[in-house]
Amino acid sequence: MVKCSRQFSSEERQGVYRAIYERRDVRSQFLPDAVDDDVLHRVLDAAHHAPSVGFMQPWDFIVIRDHTVRCAVHENFACANQAAAQRYQGQQRELYDSLKLAGILEAPLHICVTCDGGRARGNGLGRQTDSSVALYSAVCAVQNLWLAARAESLGVGWVSILDFEALKTTLGIPPELTVVAYLCLGYVSEFRPQPDLEEKGWERRAPLESVVHQDRWQER
Amino acid sequence: MVKCSRQFSSEERQGVYRAIYERRDVRSQFLPDAVDDDVLHRVLDAAHHAPSVGFMQPWDFIVIRDHTVRCAVHENFACANQAAAQRYQGQQRELYDSLKLAGILEAPLHICVTCDGGRARGNGLGRQTDSSVALYSAVCAVQNLWLAARAESLGVGWVSILDFEALKTTLGIPPELTVVAYLCLGYVSEFRPQPDLEEKGWERRAPLESVVHQDRWQER
Repeated sequence: MVKCSRQFSSEERQGVYRAIYERRDVRSQFLPDAVDDDVLHRVLDAAHHAPSVGFMQPWDFIVIRDHTVRCAVHENFACANQAAAQRYQGQQRELYDSLKLAGILEAPLHICVTCDGGRARGNGLGRQTDSSVALYSAVCAVQNLWLAARAESLGVGWVSILDFEALKTTLGIPPELTVVAYLCLGYVSEFRPQPDLEEKGWERRAPLESVVHQDRWQER
Repeated sequence: MVKCSRQFSSEERQGVYRAIYERRDVRSQFLPDAVDDDVLHRVLDAAHHAPSVGFMQPWDFIVIRDHTVRCAVHENFACANQAAAQRYQGQQRELYDSLKLAGILEAPLHICVTCDGGRARGNGLGRQTDSSVALYSAVCAVQNLWLAARAESLGVGWVSILDFEALKTTLGIPPELTVVAYLCLGYVSEFRPQPDLEEKGWERRAPLESVVHQDRWQER
């Protein structure tokens, strides 16, 4: 108990902030190097120790190394991205087309994170006022995994441009489950100093003050 | 750039895993001690550096110290929890009633995290195939905040048993926004070695192997 309450050393605290500030959504820097089972076990166990409503633990993790499956997911992404690109025109379309939005074939490992909203575990505690909280628990698992991966020098890229119903068929996921995240993992040549979309001029980071309010919502 | 790619020292890595394993959903151990503005700024900035789809940064953070607002939220919780308890009967109801599910009045500080799904920032990139991803970005911000708070010896409790529409009225949140999380923050007398719900016998942690699949979904 004392051990669990011990204050963080300044270096331990620095580790937490480094993981948070140096985490990147990686698409372009994946290396083919294999990820050892013990490293993979550590990042999955970190995910499994996320908070969950009612201690429900609604997540599952499908670890994908199979080349055929990875190619099918890449095709799925390519189609979905072609459709998504139609939304943009002119200079914005040129910029969109120049962005690399997934490293599906380059990353040696994928992890699909699902949520089973009907899971009995937790006996429904905390879930009656907002049906989304099971999904939110699974997202917390993703973020734990992402930060642990950064501490292990592993890059992670979250692919959201997918036909998720087709993905469920590809992976044999039961229809009543939700795919929360499709992640590409692998060692990287570097972690870039800024998010890709900031570096390429797609969007800027908002000042922190612009998203903080005191006591009540303040219109800006 | 080199700095950003530097490997973590073993103590920095240990900090990340300690935050993940020693993070608790705190309800019972809050102390009244004030949280300094610089500490609060660090945990909010950690939240603001979460990943977000298309670099959308859809979150806002309402920092609540006002006693009247905190009392109103406590009343909201008390009503919602009374309704939620009706679901349980017999021994399970007795156990439910014995659980402390929020530390709203004890925690000196609350943070309400919202998501603005209509925010123009990010120009819609990555959001066409799954409309939930903006919400997921805001949840990643919550988990960043939670882990940074643990590194600062601050406890956090996520209150999900609330009437969220009434909460939006209390806080003046525009109707089109979603309240993703309502968090209680403060220093604590201790971080318990296990999650409350595990310690009290409400639910057990699943073995990691039971939630990990290889290449495709495997029925169990």
